Amino acid sequence: MNERFLKQIEFIIEVDKIKHIFRKTRLFDDSRHENDAEHSWHLCMMVMILNEYSNEKFDILKVLKMVIIHDIVEIDAGDYIVYTDKQDEKREKELAGAKRIFGLLPDDQYHEMFNLWQEFEAKETKEAKFAAAVDRLEPLMQNYQTKAVSWKKHDIKGNQVLGVNKQIDNGSNYLWEYAKSMIDECINLGLIEKE
Amino acid sequence: MNERFLKQIEFIIEVDKIKHIFRKTRLFDDSRHENDAEHSWHLCMMVMILNEYSNEKFDILKVLKMVIIHDIVEIDAGDYIVYTDKQDEKREKELAGAKRIFGLLPDDQYHEMFNLWQEFEAKETKEAKFAAAVDRLEPLMQNYQTKAVSWKKHDIKGNQVLGVNKQIDNGSNYLWEYAKSMIDECINLGLIEKE
Repeated sequence: MNERFLKQIEFIIEVDKIKHIFRKTRLFDDSRHENDAEHSWHLCMMVMILNEYSNEKFDILKVLKMVIIHDIVEIDAGDYIVYTDKQDEKREKELAGAKRIFGLLPDDQYHEMFNLWQEFEAKETKEAKFAAAVDRLEPLMQNYQTKAVSWKKHDIKGNQVLGVNKQIDNGSNYLWEYAKSMIDECINLGLIEKE
Repeated sequence: MNERFLKQIEFIIEVDKIKHIFRKTRLFDDSRHENDAEHSWHLCMMVMILNEYSNEKFDILKVLKMVIIHDIVEIDAGDYIVYTDKQDEKREKELAGAKRIFGLLPDDQYHEMFNLWQEFEAKETKEAKFAAAVDRLEPLMQNYQTKAVSWKKHDIKGNQVLGVNKQIDNGSNYLWEYAKSMIDECINLGLIEKE
């Protein structure tokens, strides 16, 4: 097999490590934490089923590629809670991870993956906005289904949840209405404090 | 929220159960068995990186959708080893699973998902052939990396591995050459018996 193929195979084996990166959120049945491979797969499914609610028509193939690769960097950087105040440290570690891991690929694929990841992180294009919306919506749904178990564990307040997840509105007004109704219910039921 | 949306959300929550369906094969580092969500995510990555080796140009979006949904039926049917002699029972259970689980969706999406799954199962279109090729190649790579741990456990012979995985050739001659070299090495090293 040629050098290009061997690089691609090395990358495919390396990214298996994402199955060991566990997130702060738990599965919908609260049985255990979710890992990044499972999370990324679930976002693919959400993009397939919920794309009609995007504020703007978008390129579905591009968004699927984004959500498939968006957490690869966490193989090196680990999972930070979305409410972290260590944003600079997170960005630095993730950038180094992107360079190392996507760097295993042949040059053309390295650039495609690295650019896709940067576009996702910037949250400016319609594709990145919708990818970011489902990336926020899935853990929010998991918290709602598990009576806010992860929010309670990390002492997250309702105002923080509303602030961080407002990002959903940029991708989909409809999904943000749904998200807000879940957050409000968690506050009204006393599962989390408002402030 | 309207009825259509509620059906879509019910489906998205239901498919979380795929994270509890464990396969016969183990992760590349042999630390534990792999589940169907992780497997499906890995196939997405392989489609993104290896599509240039397909025998025929194909619609990448369609193949990604196929591999994202291809194992949803196992939520109800469970995971059968690919070398099973219970093919009729497997088909019957999986068909019932497809009808129930995709049936949670609004009609148009039910038909899209059900048809995609049937196309994948039939392995006749170029998209289904390539999806089937990576679906076979990933566990083969895992067995190769783990010194044939799963093949040995289930007493699978080299001729069976060659016979079942010959399917890869229909999607990609190149990937089949790679697959054969791994199988031959496992036989030559005495990790599995030839017959």
